[in-house]
Amino acid sequence: MAQAAGIQISCAQFEPRIGEVERNVEASLKLIAEAADSGSRLIVLPELCNSGYVLESREEAYALSEDVATGSSIARWASLAAERGLYIVAGFLERDGIKLYNSAIVIGPDGVIGTYRKNHLWADEALYFERGDLGFPVFHTPFGRVGVLICYDGWFPEAWRILALQGADIVCVPTNWVPMAEQPAGMPAMANVLCMGAAHSNSMVVAACDRVGTERGQPFIGQSLIVDHNGWPVAGPASASEPGLVTAICDLSQARRKRNWNDFNQVMRDRRTDLYGEMLGTAVRPGWY
Amino acid sequence: MAQAAGIQISCAQFEPRIGEVERNVEASLKLIAEAADSGSRLIVLPELCNSGYVLESREEAYALSEDVATGSSIARWASLAAERGLYIVAGFLERDGIKLYNSAIVIGPDGVIGTYRKNHLWADEALYFERGDLGFPVFHTPFGRVGVLICYDGWFPEAWRILALQGADIVCVPTNWVPMAEQPAGMPAMANVLCMGAAHSNSMVVAACDRVGTERGQPFIGQSLIVDHNGWPVAGPASASEPGLVTAICDLSQARRKRNWNDFNQVMRDRRTDLYGEMLGTAVRPGWY
Repeated sequence: MAQAAGIQISCAQFEPRIGEVERNVEASLKLIAEAADSGSRLIVLPELCNSGYVLESREEAYALSEDVATGSSIARWASLAAERGLYIVAGFLERDGIKLYNSAIVIGPDGVIGTYRKNHLWADEALYFERGDLGFPVFHTPFGRVGVLICYDGWFPEAWRILALQGADIVCVPTNWVPMAEQPAGMPAMANVLCMGAAHSNSMVVAACDRVGTERGQPFIGQSLIVDHNGWPVAGPASASEPGLVTAICDLSQARRKRNWNDFNQVMRDRRTDLYGEMLGTAVRPGWY
Repeated sequence: MAQAAGIQISCAQFEPRIGEVERNVEASLKLIAEAADSGSRLIVLPELCNSGYVLESREEAYALSEDVATGSSIARWASLAAERGLYIVAGFLERDGIKLYNSAIVIGPDGVIGTYRKNHLWADEALYFERGDLGFPVFHTPFGRVGVLICYDGWFPEAWRILALQGADIVCVPTNWVPMAEQPAGMPAMANVLCMGAAHSNSMVVAACDRVGTERGQPFIGQSLIVDHNGWPVAGPASASEPGLVTAICDLSQARRKRNWNDFNQVMRDRRTDLYGEMLGTAVRPGWY
């Protein structure tokens, strides 16, 4: 028999303020508690949600950073996760020695499960952070396999596919989406479109948690959402401007089961790796881009 | 100065009938002429548009096939292309010796430019056709570089990316899209979502031409569209049931130019090939799918 149980998931969309780490973590804890009260066991928070996003210097970034072992934000999230039996995926500003990363921590009731470091840095992030050096890890939990991507990572179909090939049932996406050119009325935001397409063509659940508000002149677009393995939103898109929870129950076993389309087709097996290798692996023909 | 000129493109959505090659090509020629009258120079036709799609046996498929050198459908399309100075991308049932392929022919005013053979076969196509063996060719034309994908190929982000990495400005997609599970109201068809995401994350124009009608019990969903390099529809989606032209003027130079997002980011250059190689190239971890 199919596994009937699902897991209730919440994205906790809110507005971090640059530099106000204490206040930001406090705001996140309130939303996490609210989500837990409603029955959610997996809660996703935005990118860099303890520090804020629009940094002005490497030194400012360094001052706001924390390492996984001793960081106070992580300790506070871990404490609530232990108390309430939760899984939390939170974007934070990581320091490892002298290096900084735009990272996400994956926390369970028993503490830190792992870290993901953003592999594709966007714009001025290149001034503050190192590129991720931990690959595309998939974290094992009692409810299934969890992958993590952060914001601009989602523009790389390679990243979603690599998580799917490793068996991820769900991808959690802490993000700070910014407005895109020429967004037409009546269409989902392009960031939402990319989540939907990736969920569908890889048969994975996607839970993307954005921030809202304007920081040092940079607006963010909210519209957090949870997409099922068919690629359709089952919660959200949330408001473009207001904080709040986006919550859905998702059956992760269906994500894994429904990769089989019919007698002949299973999207992972149908990949023509005999044709992809040269182009996708390492070789990029110079000059075209 | 930026190149101001665009090329007018039409997708000629219509309803082929199984086995009625003469009639189907005639129907396509009428729409092509209509598109040319309106100023279009590049016209995309549906998948297997000369033969029809829902085959019942390998022998039926064989009887409907033609080879590139002597095929009458191709000769008729080429004749009109020469007469009107057109470029035509048409899905047809190709025979090469004893082997059959679900192919698309690319024709210009001077004759056949090249052939693409569908690399990812869908469902019962595996009973009639060989998998494509020509890779992902990019065809050079006076107006830019043209890639071709057919229907289920579009479910593979690898395929779009490989065309982009070879410098394709536009991808023409002859298709026979079928209804997908759980399509919600108010959302673009998932096939449209995949075209939009691929166009955006690769900065390519996409012109996808679907068929309409029901054949041997199999419905098709129409909704042909042309998507600009930002990922937004500039023409269509067309009707889900009626034939007709979908037409837009696209500046292919913008597709190539706008791959540069900002001072730091260009999506092709940002690819972490140092991390992708092992997973995307040839290795698929057995057992996960």
